[in-house]
Amino acid sequence: MNAFINENFLLQTESSKRLYFEYAQNEPIVDYHCHLSPQEIALDRQFENLTQIWLGGDHYKWRAMRAAGVPERYITGDASDWEKFERWAEICPLTVRNPLFHWTALELNRPFGINDRFLNKFTARGIWEECNAQLAKPAFSARGIMRQMNVELVCTTDDPVDSLRYHKQIAGDFESGNFGVRVLPTFRPDKVFPRSCSTPNGVADYLKYLAKLSEVANMDVSSFALLREAFAKRHAYFHEAGSRLSDCGFELFKWEAPSSDAFLEKSFSQILKGEIISEREIIALSSILLSDLGRLNSERNWTSQLHIGALRNNSTRIMKTVGVDAGCDSMVDGSYGKALSRYLDSLDKDNKLPKTIVYNLNPDANYLLASLVANFNDGTIPGKMQYGAGWWFLDQKKGMEEQLETLSNMGLLSLFVGMLTDSRSFLSYTRHEYFRRILCNLIGKEMEMGIIPNDFDWIGKIVKNICHDNAIRYFQF
Amino acid sequence: MNAFINENFLLQTESSKRLYFEYAQNEPIVDYHCHLSPQEIALDRQFENLTQIWLGGDHYKWRAMRAAGVPERYITGDASDWEKFERWAEICPLTVRNPLFHWTALELNRPFGINDRFLNKFTARGIWEECNAQLAKPAFSARGIMRQMNVELVCTTDDPVDSLRYHKQIAGDFESGNFGVRVLPTFRPDKVFPRSCSTPNGVADYLKYLAKLSEVANMDVSSFALLREAFAKRHAYFHEAGSRLSDCGFELFKWEAPSSDAFLEKSFSQILKGEIISEREIIALSSILLSDLGRLNSERNWTSQLHIGALRNNSTRIMKTVGVDAGCDSMVDGSYGKALSRYLDSLDKDNKLPKTIVYNLNPDANYLLASLVANFNDGTIPGKMQYGAGWWFLDQKKGMEEQLETLSNMGLLSLFVGMLTDSRSFLSYTRHEYFRRILCNLIGKEMEMGIIPNDFDWIGKIVKNICHDNAIRYFQF
Amino acid sequence: MNAFINENFLLQTESSKRLYFEYAQNEPIVDYHCHLSPQEIALDRQFENLTQIWLGGDHYKWRAMRAAGVPERYITGDASDWEKFERWAEICPLTVRNPLFHWTALELNRPFGINDRFLNKFTARGIWEECNAQLAKPAFSARGIMRQMNVELVCTTDDPVDSLRYHKQIAGDFESGNFGVRVLPTFRPDKVFPRSCSTPNGVADYLKYLAKLSEVANMDVSSFALLREAFAKRHAYFHEAGSRLSDCGFELFKWEAPSSDAFLEKSFSQILKGEIISEREIIALSSILLSDLGRLNSERNWTSQLHIGALRNNSTRIMKTVGVDAGCDSMVDGSYGKALSRYLDSLDKDNKLPKTIVYNLNPDANYLLASLVANFNDGTIPGKMQYGAGWWFLDQKKGMEEQLETLSNMGLLSLFVGMLTDSRSFLSYTRHEYFRRILCNLIGKEMEMGIIPNDFDWIGKIVKNICHDNAIRYFQF
Repeated sequence: MNAFINENFLLQTESSKRLYFEYAQNEPIVDYHCHLSPQEIALDRQFENLTQIWLGGDHYKWRAMRAAGVPERYITGDASDWEKFERWAEICPLTVRNPLFHWTALELNRPFGINDRFLNKFTARGIWEECNAQLAKPAFSARGIMRQMNVELVCTTDDPVDSLRYHKQIAGDFESGNFGVRVLPTFRPDKVFPRSCSTPNGVADYLKYLAKLSEVANMDVSSFALLREAFAKRHAYFHEAGSRLSDCGFELFKWEAPSSDAFLEKSFSQILKGEIISEREIIALSSILLSDLGRLNSERNWTSQLHIGALRNNSTRIMKTVGVDAGCDSMVDGSYGKALSRYLDSLDKDNKLPKTIVYNLNPDANYLLASLVANFNDGTIPGKMQYGAGWWFLDQKKGMEEQLETLSNMGLLSLFVGMLTDSRSFLSYTRHEYFRRILCNLIGKEMEMGIIPNDFDWIGKIVKNICHDNAIRYFQF
Repeated sequence: MNAFINENFLLQTESSKRLYFEYAQNEPIVDYHCHLSPQEIALDRQFENLTQIWLGGDHYKWRAMRAAGVPERYITGDASDWEKFERWAEICPLTVRNPLFHWTALELNRPFGINDRFLNKFTARGIWEECNAQLAKPAFSARGIMRQMNVELVCTTDDPVDSLRYHKQIAGDFESGNFGVRVLPTFRPDKVFPRSCSTPNGVADYLKYLAKLSEVANMDVSSFALLREAFAKRHAYFHEAGSRLSDCGFELFKWEAPSSDAFLEKSFSQILKGEIISEREIIALSSILLSDLGRLNSERNWTSQLHIGALRNNSTRIMKTVGVDAGCDSMVDGSYGKALSRYLDSLDKDNKLPKTIVYNLNPDANYLLASLVANFNDGTIPGKMQYGAGWWFLDQKKGMEEQLETLSNMGLLSLFVGMLTDSRSFLSYTRHEYFRRILCNLIGKEMEMGIIPNDFDWIGKIVKNICHDNAIRYFQF
Repeated sequence: MNAFINENFLLQTESSKRLYFEYAQNEPIVDYHCHLSPQEIALDRQFENLTQIWLGGDHYKWRAMRAAGVPERYITGDASDWEKFERWAEICPLTVRNPLFHWTALELNRPFGINDRFLNKFTARGIWEECNAQLAKPAFSARGIMRQMNVELVCTTDDPVDSLRYHKQIAGDFESGNFGVRVLPTFRPDKVFPRSCSTPNGVADYLKYLAKLSEVANMDVSSFALLREAFAKRHAYFHEAGSRLSDCGFELFKWEAPSSDAFLEKSFSQILKGEIISEREIIALSSILLSDLGRLNSERNWTSQLHIGALRNNSTRIMKTVGVDAGCDSMVDGSYGKALSRYLDSLDKDNKLPKTIVYNLNPDANYLLASLVANFNDGTIPGKMQYGAGWWFLDQKKGMEEQLETLSNMGLLSLFVGMLTDSRSFLSYTRHEYFRRILCNLIGKEMEMGIIPNDFDWIGKIVKNICHDNAIRYFQF
């Protein structure tokens, strides 16, 4: 029997329980960073079966299946949806102590109500049928699940060249009262940075992207100055559509003080001619765009998100056969503290530093980042510089606890804007539940140890703020 | 009510309590590294109010206030002392789980005896008045507080060009029996290293410093050889004044084997001509001075302290308006293990390696440093190579616990010379209480878990040694 | 009295005890990585006294003794065995919280049965005599101890030039039923890499090594191509002798895509001429050999072990007087994630990636490595890419717990191939006991917290697999 997904899951003390049930559990979800498909929300996708909603695109599960010795055919190949699910179910008992194990139990519990069994090869068929039957109901459509899970607001992740047509459709439904969840785009301009331009194929890809950008910006991006103009135009366009956040991903964060316009234009013109450029030139061009982004965000009161430290597509074999985001990404090591400090300072000294949230993938940078960004709090917005929630490989119990410890010791936990799913799946909302239980457990235990005041009005309010109110106040959607 | 600052604060088991009360609590304080003002001790400063003694110069609090959205005027600006205190009190409840929260409670408890309330906007006025009234009494002068807190010895941090006149005055009072606390200088030669000489302004500053050094050393520092001579003279001068420690701060530790005298003299002569030098030259010159320092320390049986890993003055804006040590410092990342190993080895192979304590700011170097320095224990002085106490951002409960874990696993905790305040404030002595409670809690818990022998004579002695005796034996003041 | 080495040592909950006693305690030991002397096993060495079996070659103890202020004479010098033991006993009480303290207690308990006293200066003489008397018995010979400790299989660490004669002798005894423990060689080709060739002495050493290799491979290694051939020949020779693992040690892992044959041969010919080569050339040559090793391992279904992050021989003084492996090694910092990823990918894309276990010495790389190697699981062998057990400085309670946490969160703990001693001593087998107790304690506690299913069939099987069965299935000896 699945004894542990009960109401007291993870809540080890009475104070933890009280904090969770009175101050956390019922707060609506503000999921300010995710990778849901706006199209699926707009069209209110109904999923055919559990594989489609749960295994499709879930590279966490793919990775575990490969580790367990499941052939690729049953992961991303041409096996049937049932066969894929069956294989996942078979290896699921091996995931004990991996976050997938708790996530699986939590996700079967909510929204499906299955909490009397663990998923394994014996229970696979029954769970498959029960869940698929439920998935056929309206309450289990994309929007249905969001309603069931008490979602208040969601920010997706969108490319600057995106028309945002699905966002507009969802916004229409929101305004007309047809759909109670706000869904906003996030400006993710990674492809605008000429990072790929160190190889001929990369230059070709980048030129295609510039062509799209030219089209949507309704101008000819024929110089770096014009690229910056197009970039700003799309930022304005996203602002109109309700976006209040940007996001950028970095292997290691690199930034340097502005190069001369002549140098920048020369480098950019090389790309336009289809020629590769040097690493140094890539950094120079990208640095300008990063600074532009900071200024635009500051001027429109947006929040910058910086995700640092992912080494992607490590397996050439899987990259060729499955593509990106296939479960072959991991962490990278290396220094970037000074570059990040200089970037933030360059904006701050011109009063153009936006609210900023940094996330690191390699936990060896936890203390570095949490201490570094706090140098730039400036007494304007409470919690202006945020050390963000456990990201990706760190989005698990220990990772969240360490993020909470790090933030607490290096800054002010009370002002933390809280958790996000970062997910591609409509079934990931229990990550908020997981986070809240962990948060309440941690704080409740310390209340009982006598190292946090035993004052539920005071401490409960901090919990409620972290679960919901801080985000609302901070992002000003 | 402030329930947690009671006598059992942080002591979770009976063994922890017994260790604390019988072996730790009453040990006198040997604060072998701090930043107190010798002048304020010499003149026995009486503080006008709580802001002056508690918020003035306390960049930890400034940082928290900026993070909480308090405008700079109320932090380092022209607001009144009361207004500044009021703002600090208002945001203090937000510091829960930050070390400031416990420090605040501990410091109001001792020496002020306020332990029935937490500081917040409602209690601010009462606490202000109560404390200010006490601060007017002789028992709350600089020396009065040191006496109250059972301080036995303090080492301040002093520049080689300092005349040490206040130290001499205090020493006179110590010898005459007027003041029972020993106060010794520490030789901190950071400004002698030509680190700033990569910019014209930095060269100008360095030349001014050389002029001062020439004056106090009573010689003309007109060559690098003469700089080394002046350096050695000041070391001798500090020794006469009772100094037995040096201290150096580093961003990343850099050192290289000696360059030729010709190269060194040429680089130095460039500085004398007001010209900038290269990073390489800065390292070459600094390396020689570092080696000199090691040799001088070894010959006079001093202890070297190395503080590694701070990235300072990150905010240009605050640097311009407030200056250094203003709460805009943080950690840096990067490698330095091999350079440090070579430096220590270069001294060791000539039998000139002094007792050494290393401190790291970025905890990603905990295990590196603790394991690395232990390579150079040589069977002479027990605990010769020390992995030092949690420093700055790591001077908090988790940071101290991890330092204790790291040192325990990589070396011999039993020989640890213990805690220090590193503080600019006379109200920081409860950091020793905080450390001792954490130490006793950790060890007492393990005694009850059965993984440390349940032998109070043995283990209690280790605790007492760490709290006091090891330092006395080690430093040989 | 030594109260803690009782049957429940480290087992804090009832579930932990049940897991240990029912699923872990009685599993035979598969010690797949150690540094025992095949000669001592072959000749079934009988040790004269406790110093010879316990302190000789144990650089962990030497390091602690130096830290405690014991002169070198009593560590590695000409003092008598008793004097050395006495000094070790004297400082042993200072090792509380260091792994040496628990190891010492465990090793005196098994095989010697001494668990009523701690080792110290008062108990030293009695323990010395009791143990020495036992050591004189057949049950305490090299093989006797292995039998007592329920050892099933051991892999030693051997140089490619080794004749493996002692292994052959042991194998004969195994086949004839005279000795029930399988003892296999491991191919450790570190000396084949021309790492030392940046100095004239290093080139000379390398040339001597090449001469030996030429001899045992029965060919003249007069070109790099021929070196690769000799390398492959020795791999085949080791395979014949039962080897199924290789091992390589790295300071930082370095690897780059193949250079041209012309470049490689030119660099190698320089060495043959007795000339030093550049760091770049060393890496180029070593990279080819590393790739060869991966391919050979893959083709013969071996497992690659990579030990990364040791900075060796830090003390020139001790290196000159005592030599290598003398207790003056520690960790190093620096980046190597991308190089390792590219190496693994280069093999994987050709379907030549062998089963691989990585170990890091600096724990700042825990998450990096565990996440990185998992990119290359390919659905063939369950647990193909392993994040290995706590190594050297990390082979202690906290280090093991963190390895288990890291592996659990980044991969599948269920498939972990478990612990090894990495030891030079026949008295180290209780490290397996120590690990098993820690593992069971960790998992049992979580069963009682309700975050691991309270299902002993399921979870007990995982424990049993980690203690024994996974290794047998994985290595396919």
